[in-house]
Amino acid sequence: MTDGVLRFGADYYPEHWPETRWTTDARLMREASFNVVRLAEFAWSKLEPREGEFDFSWLDRAIAVLHDQGIDVVLGTPTASPPMWVMKKHPDAYRVLEDGRRLTFGHRRHYCPNHEGFRESTRSIVAAMAEHYAANKAVIGWQTDNEFGDRCYCGSCGRAFARWLAKRHGSIDTLNERWGTVFWSQEYENWDDIQLPSRIARAPNPGLQLDYFRFSSDSYVDYQNIHIDILRRLCPDQWITHNLMGFKYDQIDYFDLAAPLDFVSWDNYPRLAWAMVPEVDVPAVALASDTMRGLKRKGFWVMEAQSGSGGWEDISVAPRPGEIRLWAWQAIAHGADGIIFFRWRTARVGAEQYWHGILDHHGEVGRRYEEVRRMGAELARVGGKILPTQPRAEVALMLSYDSRFAFQAQGNNPAFSYPGHLRDIYAAFHRLNVMVDVVSPEADLAGYRIVLAPALHVLPAATADRLRAYVEAGGVLLGTARTGVKGIHNEVVDAHLPGLLRDVFGVRVEEYDSPALGVATQLRAEGAGQNLTGDATANGWCDILAPEGATPLMVYEAQHYLGRAAVTEHRFGQGLALYAGTFGNAALHDHLASRLLDAAGLAEAMRPAPEGIELCWRQGDDGTRLLFVLNHGVEPRSVVLTEAFVSLIDGLPVRGETVVGAHDVLLLRTGGNLI
Amino acid sequence: MTDGVLRFGADYYPEHWPETRWTTDARLMREASFNVVRLAEFAWSKLEPREGEFDFSWLDRAIAVLHDQGIDVVLGTPTASPPMWVMKKHPDAYRVLEDGRRLTFGHRRHYCPNHEGFRESTRSIVAAMAEHYAANKAVIGWQTDNEFGDRCYCGSCGRAFARWLAKRHGSIDTLNERWGTVFWSQEYENWDDIQLPSRIARAPNPGLQLDYFRFSSDSYVDYQNIHIDILRRLCPDQWITHNLMGFKYDQIDYFDLAAPLDFVSWDNYPRLAWAMVPEVDVPAVALASDTMRGLKRKGFWVMEAQSGSGGWEDISVAPRPGEIRLWAWQAIAHGADGIIFFRWRTARVGAEQYWHGILDHHGEVGRRYEEVRRMGAELARVGGKILPTQPRAEVALMLSYDSRFAFQAQGNNPAFSYPGHLRDIYAAFHRLNVMVDVVSPEADLAGYRIVLAPALHVLPAATADRLRAYVEAGGVLLGTARTGVKGIHNEVVDAHLPGLLRDVFGVRVEEYDSPALGVATQLRAEGAGQNLTGDATANGWCDILAPEGATPLMVYEAQHYLGRAAVTEHRFGQGLALYAGTFGNAALHDHLASRLLDAAGLAEAMRPAPEGIELCWRQGDDGTRLLFVLNHGVEPRSVVLTEAFVSLIDGLPVRGETVVGAHDVLLLRTGGNLI
Amino acid sequence: MTDGVLRFGADYYPEHWPETRWTTDARLMREASFNVVRLAEFAWSKLEPREGEFDFSWLDRAIAVLHDQGIDVVLGTPTASPPMWVMKKHPDAYRVLEDGRRLTFGHRRHYCPNHEGFRESTRSIVAAMAEHYAANKAVIGWQTDNEFGDRCYCGSCGRAFARWLAKRHGSIDTLNERWGTVFWSQEYENWDDIQLPSRIARAPNPGLQLDYFRFSSDSYVDYQNIHIDILRRLCPDQWITHNLMGFKYDQIDYFDLAAPLDFVSWDNYPRLAWAMVPEVDVPAVALASDTMRGLKRKGFWVMEAQSGSGGWEDISVAPRPGEIRLWAWQAIAHGADGIIFFRWRTARVGAEQYWHGILDHHGEVGRRYEEVRRMGAELARVGGKILPTQPRAEVALMLSYDSRFAFQAQGNNPAFSYPGHLRDIYAAFHRLNVMVDVVSPEADLAGYRIVLAPALHVLPAATADRLRAYVEAGGVLLGTARTGVKGIHNEVVDAHLPGLLRDVFGVRVEEYDSPALGVATQLRAEGAGQNLTGDATANGWCDILAPEGATPLMVYEAQHYLGRAAVTEHRFGQGLALYAGTFGNAALHDHLASRLLDAAGLAEAMRPAPEGIELCWRQGDDGTRLLFVLNHGVEPRSVVLTEAFVSLIDGLPVRGETVVGAHDVLLLRTGGNLI
Repeated sequence: MTDGVLRFGADYYPEHWPETRWTTDARLMREASFNVVRLAEFAWSKLEPREGEFDFSWLDRAIAVLHDQGIDVVLGTPTASPPMWVMKKHPDAYRVLEDGRRLTFGHRRHYCPNHEGFRESTRSIVAAMAEHYAANKAVIGWQTDNEFGDRCYCGSCGRAFARWLAKRHGSIDTLNERWGTVFWSQEYENWDDIQLPSRIARAPNPGLQLDYFRFSSDSYVDYQNIHIDILRRLCPDQWITHNLMGFKYDQIDYFDLAAPLDFVSWDNYPRLAWAMVPEVDVPAVALASDTMRGLKRKGFWVMEAQSGSGGWEDISVAPRPGEIRLWAWQAIAHGADGIIFFRWRTARVGAEQYWHGILDHHGEVGRRYEEVRRMGAELARVGGKILPTQPRAEVALMLSYDSRFAFQAQGNNPAFSYPGHLRDIYAAFHRLNVMVDVVSPEADLAGYRIVLAPALHVLPAATADRLRAYVEAGGVLLGTARTGVKGIHNEVVDAHLPGLLRDVFGVRVEEYDSPALGVATQLRAEGAGQNLTGDATANGWCDILAPEGATPLMVYEAQHYLGRAAVTEHRFGQGLALYAGTFGNAALHDHLASRLLDAAGLAEAMRPAPEGIELCWRQGDDGTRLLFVLNHGVEPRSVVLTEAFVSLIDGLPVRGETVVGAHDVLLLRTGGNLI
Repeated sequence: MTDGVLRFGADYYPEHWPETRWTTDARLMREASFNVVRLAEFAWSKLEPREGEFDFSWLDRAIAVLHDQGIDVVLGTPTASPPMWVMKKHPDAYRVLEDGRRLTFGHRRHYCPNHEGFRESTRSIVAAMAEHYAANKAVIGWQTDNEFGDRCYCGSCGRAFARWLAKRHGSIDTLNERWGTVFWSQEYENWDDIQLPSRIARAPNPGLQLDYFRFSSDSYVDYQNIHIDILRRLCPDQWITHNLMGFKYDQIDYFDLAAPLDFVSWDNYPRLAWAMVPEVDVPAVALASDTMRGLKRKGFWVMEAQSGSGGWEDISVAPRPGEIRLWAWQAIAHGADGIIFFRWRTARVGAEQYWHGILDHHGEVGRRYEEVRRMGAELARVGGKILPTQPRAEVALMLSYDSRFAFQAQGNNPAFSYPGHLRDIYAAFHRLNVMVDVVSPEADLAGYRIVLAPALHVLPAATADRLRAYVEAGGVLLGTARTGVKGIHNEVVDAHLPGLLRDVFGVRVEEYDSPALGVATQLRAEGAGQNLTGDATANGWCDILAPEGATPLMVYEAQHYLGRAAVTEHRFGQGLALYAGTFGNAALHDHLASRLLDAAGLAEAMRPAPEGIELCWRQGDDGTRLLFVLNHGVEPRSVVLTEAFVSLIDGLPVRGETVVGAHDVLLLRTGGNLI
Repeated sequence: MTDGVLRFGADYYPEHWPETRWTTDARLMREASFNVVRLAEFAWSKLEPREGEFDFSWLDRAIAVLHDQGIDVVLGTPTASPPMWVMKKHPDAYRVLEDGRRLTFGHRRHYCPNHEGFRESTRSIVAAMAEHYAANKAVIGWQTDNEFGDRCYCGSCGRAFARWLAKRHGSIDTLNERWGTVFWSQEYENWDDIQLPSRIARAPNPGLQLDYFRFSSDSYVDYQNIHIDILRRLCPDQWITHNLMGFKYDQIDYFDLAAPLDFVSWDNYPRLAWAMVPEVDVPAVALASDTMRGLKRKGFWVMEAQSGSGGWEDISVAPRPGEIRLWAWQAIAHGADGIIFFRWRTARVGAEQYWHGILDHHGEVGRRYEEVRRMGAELARVGGKILPTQPRAEVALMLSYDSRFAFQAQGNNPAFSYPGHLRDIYAAFHRLNVMVDVVSPEADLAGYRIVLAPALHVLPAATADRLRAYVEAGGVLLGTARTGVKGIHNEVVDAHLPGLLRDVFGVRVEEYDSPALGVATQLRAEGAGQNLTGDATANGWCDILAPEGATPLMVYEAQHYLGRAAVTEHRFGQGLALYAGTFGNAALHDHLASRLLDAAGLAEAMRPAPEGIELCWRQGDDGTRLLFVLNHGVEPRSVVLTEAFVSLIDGLPVRGETVVGAHDVLLLRTGGNLI
């Protein structure tokens, strides 16, 4: 999909700057070894200044200037920022917030994806662009819109939701039965009786909630298909991607959004103004890349790689010297095949005045440019060696958007967060430098030695069957509290928990406790877990487990469930199923990770490293293994290499104790015919 | 009213479950010694699926199945959840929030009590139910609606408020005069000029605020009367109650709501998801029962007794083993003559999926069922001995909804809460295991040795006269800061504070200070209080008192009022009036309680008990006294009984040091002809 | 303007009280040496009860009663509280909040200043009052409206904003260019396309934001001109003022609002319920007075001087004994020529029931009256000696409302507050008892030895030129981080920071960091700063400075900018320019103040005093110097006077060590021909 070139560049907005500057920018880009830029994803007003009047001339000129320097182009369909004339034509296309307020003009993403008139305007601009650029050799691919998302509660959505429900449930009686609207006399008579579940009335029906969240996700998937259908038809030689928002974004089922794309991209901002904390959450960034790779189980691009402080009203902590390059290498280590920095030069105007690019407002090169230029030179040398490799994991982490949506409606416990729990489980493997794939509940699990399926709250029978078969065939499975509670209509199952997986885990949840905020209950290791150390505690949830074939790994040390099993493991078929009836702290997660890796015969895969060091591998089909030693810390660190490597950049041998500088990276190669 | 049977059962929703399950449920209920269930209070859509089409057949069958097992029925009028067709008929009957947003369909309590069309729909369903069930022998009584409450700010309310004001004030000039609308040029010309006091404009006129809160309370009282009028007429042999929300609910004057009922019920949830704290506030639960008993000064029911974790989005801390039974016994100890657990089985669907019943979602019996069954067996044995007794108190706590409403509009000090202050004063007596009645400002005070009237902010002349007469005749009175500040139109009195009670307390508030958050001022005991110990401090308010006949009990130790009186006592007529010019901490409240009990000759009534132990008495006309020793702690405790008792359950003698288990209760009897 | 009399009085509302009480009030006022009251600023409904029906009779009588006691009158135009009939006539004149909700009747300031109908009603009442009172000898002046402010987002404002923009920018293309609406396709086609920048859509265009805030400010300035035009025409012999809200109010450019007034007044409440903290922020109160003096660089009045606890729903900490008088003297020390206490007697009704006057609700005199009476007697003796003097400062603090508005839209860093930063810089000089003037960016800087221009974010070229010339000519200038970032259209400059002042400060901001909340970076003094001590730290912002002629005063001790310059000083022309690239803590500000004063040859002006003591000077043209020794503490303090003074009150000599009581003041005189 990426024609054998590891792509490197920036997001560029020629329309924001005098045309006289373009050649300077293009030259500086070439000097930084750029081979691609993204253009035009917010330029609707410049491309179609009035309805039906298209002007591609300025963009053609900009592309020519760039291509003259050997730089290819990705074009964004510019629908994320519909201009004034579009909104005046469709005044009811403004998106409506959950509280009923309708957006006004002046930001972006102010449209409803279900508004028929707006969809028609979308078809028009996308088709015009596609026709114009289908044959442009500089244009290698397309990005649909920009960062799809944000639920809408407007009348168009209400009508579309009624149609969506009719299609899903067939009859209103079926819907009433599935949602249990008998509760509180909420039966519907007609599809159009159903109102969107704004929280104005506190606690809407859980079936309605989950279906609305699914519908809202489907709305963007469907809206994206307008773009894709046109582009596939008119531009068969150019690929299509979309820039997603990593692991954290939670309102679209990204597996669905990714499905029709050639590959996914994402926007990677480890330091943002809306999280003014001193330290980067390194495992969370790694998880984001792994999630993006998992959406299609293939390489991805970073379409917006952080190149400076980010933020709108406030300005984030500045990326430390080296971090811009480090984060880009980290993304490559996790599977990125393209790095596009956002943005080339910091805007002097508009809401993103403080979203810093590679160049500052003044446009002169500086430290950040030099850092990018260094990386460009490195990639120019070694990109071709990296591209044939990819990360390979024997551990899979299951991400269920159905469960995520269900927890958004009903959080269960205020100390619990579904994405936070997944991040915490993931972090234990990250601390051991064990690579993890993120997979969907529909994924083929063959080939994984360990499957982590935390808090699989909404559990379809097919997923349960797949997990059962996986363990039966020898797999090692982790489940955690609140698994198997709900059927697909968000109804609580008519069975002992963990519901459909009770036999697999060999355990019955006899009772449970939803602890008060701040209450942590000590855990004590038993049986196979006894050699574990560290202060494992339970919090956020406490299942009281009655083993039905399983053996306790941990028991509670307090509360009325003192001595009762908190974590169990169960031989099932050829495999092993661990169940943790609590969310727990990092020490618990470390225990679980060790036990799982040990049980899966992967003990030797554990590679604890000094604080701040992250180790990643990409492997080629020829046996090549690339080791990325990433130092996220502010001090140089020594690592001890137990194999013989050569440095990817200069081909020199590296082994034994080796120092990696603060915010620096070692790129090492071993094995394969590349040596 | 309860036909000589202490009632025991659960809230049951046959419409939520397959009819084939009903007999199993009824059998399990009988085995748990149930003699009553509540049905149908949310079943409007099942009882009147379309306007005027009534279907009682399913409910008839459910009642028959239950009655076959000896179980009687309380029916709820199902108006708390008007179905879709009702709301489509009356689209402007949706309740409006203070911020102006109108509720939508999908929760409950979405109606305005003043909407004439909705009131007509109410008459129709209530009359139809009443006609159908008047002669059903299984049906012993009715519950009106469900948990009345929540203020509405809609147009119907606006019009009804204008009528209410015209009736109350007679002329618009009188209203202007009483409210003081001359302030900020707010005079009204016509009744319908008056807008509901939404906080959108910050600080509305205090007279308007208080009258609107009264009107809002009256609206529900009036709406309930629609139900009561029909039921009284059609079902003269069945009693009527309503399930109130204890002490904490603050938007209806419960004395008014209770007046037309045969007895009150309330919903008792010591552990809820919206207060995720580790410990139950035991005195607050006790105060709630005492408040409910005080509304009509007679026994009450718990219509919803907590049977498991409660919550909508989040799930509360699980009731500890024993607590379900303990709280039920505690309610009986405080005057309950009926215990109905909410709910029989946890709903698999709807907003209350996580509101746990006696049975879990799976429907099999478990620990909670066994706990309930044990209690059922106990009650089957001893209920008949408990029913002829009742709690008797010599201490009254005055609860003024007018003051409560006034403080909602103007909090006076951010550290002060009127209900919190009453709870704290009450808790001092609870720590001494002295029984307390909660009474209205209109109550007959004869028979009480002590009257606690904290923060009686809005003080009608009749109440002041009653308190004056009470003290003159020998009573002991406690008043606290912010007493007597307001007349009945929420105007500040034209007099030195404590206003109409200045002579009774023998004290003048020379000045006052509203301390900053976190500032506590040490108090020093003087005179009659000098033998008191403990670190009493002032907070939330500091009156600087000029005694006018009173003697200081406590003086301030800091601020510019160092050495000035903070607490005084005053011989007035045959009685004694204590005035505490501050809200203070628990040590102050303990001092006040001791001094009051001592002054009232009730020193021997003080029965401090080990931490976690609550002692309650019910007394019969024949001299029987029942002692309930309730252990709210997680450890067994010893109590020393200084009288000879027999165990109520087994008739064995009990005396001296006796152990009561964790979350367990001792039921003891002495005196009377029951022995 | 104030006819040689230092004015002293109270805000009085005869319409709130029985007419029979007026003579008592007037007598008590005279006994307290009052010579002025403010009347009628909320009395529209009493003055024009129905449209066009005016009734001045009651006010005439009240004025007569007061004037009989020698008390003059200031009249407020009563437009801050339009009565019901006005609002019924103009239902769309209710102000609209940023969230789109329209105010309702029942508070005050519920009008939109741009509503044409309301402006017409304003003209009518103001003209009628002016005509009636132009010749009344008791009436010495006017107050326009009351505490102008609060932004409106209604349709009238939308239309007025379009006109305002057309006037400012000339063509829509120019506006698009200046605001940079090309960003996110936001170009406007017509003036009336432009919507008010409600935050509903998150981050509006910065140019739009700043212009809307300016427009909103101008709206009140323009609305005030309606009042002023009429009063100037009809009442040429009476002066005009307005009661502003000190330094803290941030939605009107007070330099603009003050321009057409004869002098400004302000409302001084050091203790309010919405800041329930134990201690008064003394420097903030001093800064407020200095800001008010700076608006016109002349004496001002306190139109509402706190006379008791203030608050609406809650009640503030009570002013400590002595504080009412102390704050009034403090205001005089900072330039007040009139003190009007708010209010005479505490209202028994209305939203301000708890806003305490000199008299309590009961109307009897008490401690606060005695405190006021004492001050009245003092002023009667010495007022004439004070009036010819005024504060004179050699230090100017530049307050830029453009920068303040820009920071409201984009805060830059959550730990940073523009007004907080100015207060902190000011406080360092306050701790040294160095008098400071507050000046506008357009001010003539001649005569100042030091100009403090912190965070001059929006920097017009004219201001930069003025500051450059000031330093060239020998001035000492302080600039701090985020200076010179923006041009006047809120666009980021196309230059290295600090932009237009880079040459003056001799420094280039190479990079910057916006630190996480709670992160403080140690600073180390260098060069001319080396003799400084104290733990100076950087926070809220860290510029990494590349000196271009400047020398470092402080360097960072950590982060990746360890050792880099944080604070520099630069000889420029005859002067010195200090640049602090961080906001910093009090120790840093103390360092900066010392260095600046030293460099300006004002080292001897530093007069550190004991904790809680504030020293202020007023000077006369004849050499007289008045020293006010204000003790804000709760303990008596000694000060050592190094000059010979006489006590202003009794003419006795005072020198050497002298005690000033808690919350007391010494009034001392030296020099001049007054001795």
